[in-house]
Amino acid sequence: MTQKLNNVKEFVNSIDTFIFDCDGVLWLGSTIVEKAVETLQYLRALKKDIKFVTNNSTKTREQFMEKIKSYGIECYLNEIYGSSFGTAIYLNKIGFNNKKVFIIGEYGLQKELNDQNIQTVKEVTRLNDGIDNVQNIQVESDIGAVVVGMDTCLTYQKAVYAHKAIVENNALFIATNTDTSYPIKNGKSIPGAGSIVSMISTSTAKQPIIIGKPETLLLDLIIEKDKLNRERTCMIGDRLDTDILFGINGNIKTLLVLTGISKLEEISQPNSPIIPNYYTDTVSDLLLHKE
Amino acid sequence: MTQKLNNVKEFVNSIDTFIFDCDGVLWLGSTIVEKAVETLQYLRALKKDIKFVTNNSTKTREQFMEKIKSYGIECYLNEIYGSSFGTAIYLNKIGFNNKKVFIIGEYGLQKELNDQNIQTVKEVTRLNDGIDNVQNIQVESDIGAVVVGMDTCLTYQKAVYAHKAIVENNALFIATNTDTSYPIKNGKSIPGAGSIVSMISTSTAKQPIIIGKPETLLLDLIIEKDKLNRERTCMIGDRLDTDILFGINGNIKTLLVLTGISKLEEISQPNSPIIPNYYTDTVSDLLLHKE
Repeated sequence: MTQKLNNVKEFVNSIDTFIFDCDGVLWLGSTIVEKAVETLQYLRALKKDIKFVTNNSTKTREQFMEKIKSYGIECYLNEIYGSSFGTAIYLNKIGFNNKKVFIIGEYGLQKELNDQNIQTVKEVTRLNDGIDNVQNIQVESDIGAVVVGMDTCLTYQKAVYAHKAIVENNALFIATNTDTSYPIKNGKSIPGAGSIVSMISTSTAKQPIIIGKPETLLLDLIIEKDKLNRERTCMIGDRLDTDILFGINGNIKTLLVLTGISKLEEISQPNSPIIPNYYTDTVSDLLLHKE
Repeated sequence: MTQKLNNVKEFVNSIDTFIFDCDGVLWLGSTIVEKAVETLQYLRALKKDIKFVTNNSTKTREQFMEKIKSYGIECYLNEIYGSSFGTAIYLNKIGFNNKKVFIIGEYGLQKELNDQNIQTVKEVTRLNDGIDNVQNIQVESDIGAVVVGMDTCLTYQKAVYAHKAIVENNALFIATNTDTSYPIKNGKSIPGAGSIVSMISTSTAKQPIIIGKPETLLLDLIIEKDKLNRERTCMIGDRLDTDILFGINGNIKTLLVLTGISKLEEISQPNSPIIPNYYTDTVSDLLLHKE
């Protein structure tokens, strides 16, 4: 059972840490949500703890921080959790070392792994195309994991390398996230990390370990690193199937804002599969508390 | 309920048309199955109708015929049905014309479509990588279908083009086949057409029309073109999930040979999901009829 966020004061008092999804919540493409800046300032003034979570694996935390700041939002590096950073932390946590990671992904993913002292291989020497040639692609014996994220430089050769590493080396198969498409300008989309993950998962018949929302790994990392109280932590997002499910899976509070993807109709049916604790029109409704 | 092929004479008499899967049935990689050549000669001597069916979309029928002949097997062009040829026939059958097909696939697919007077686009002008660049890929307005097969030249840019054609142009989405992996030498594999199909299907949230085994389109085409009697037609294959299911779906007889992928254990359980009418050790068991 969901409820409209009516008693804002009580709600804000009950939460110490607000975890924000960004696009669809704080901004829409290049446009900041009205009074989003003031809302975050207000929460900071109340000494609330702020986190920003992104499934986007293409940017480093630094790059993501610069993006947040470009909207005029105050932000610090240790508040940012992305699926690339999460992947690096996860690999170190499970004691992955002395081996290398093969990456299908962009600079941000490589940089975050390297910053955590994980060695990466990113490019496949491009053999001539054709099955007679690509079948000769050899995987280095010290590849112990394959990490798949969004990659605008994806080639069939990279897919062969990832496939062989997983099948022949028994390498770990990790997905930064499984967002099926990637939103671009004018409301259009292009294939997302999840579609590339699907290719590798289909060819190898293996399921990946998934770092990003709605899986719990990234949230567990935040909770553990900052010793948060799940009871007093809230995920604020615009998507039921990623953000809100992420909060539900992680056993924290959830607030759906209606500025992005998911619509009120989706949670107002009695058989709706994903139900947030609260919903409200826009993140700046939290400002009401001020009055 | 399956049965071992004991009464070969009766079986051969009951069938007019034998449809053969090739790899795993007539040959194993570069090695011909013992007496496979003689078996086919024998069936031809009995005036049986022979067909060769392949899911491989990378070769033209001519190229596939040359391959069959290279094993010493007698073979004619009109006996060969491949998923690329099937795609071309299907497109003409549904009256697809005046529009172009975007291909993710190899030369064989392009050639078969062009031979049936279907215009194709195969390459995307490679914009610089990075989301800011690839999002500017524009799809020609006259692209009416996307055909996805095995493609060792796959790039992310091609995936973007296919995605946009399907989502923005509402182009037909056709898969030559959905084989998840592609067998290569030494018992190894690389990603197959089905893995590429899965990427596009995941990103667009659309299911393709599938031409190849085990779907019925290719078999219906053979039956219709050559006016075959389903009762007196038999599919001979080594894989339950493609060949035998293809025969079952198409309501013809099925014979599993044990020289390839599927094993006797898989059909001897009472709850086995895919059961051939008959099974036998090797295709050359059909020669027994001679004695």
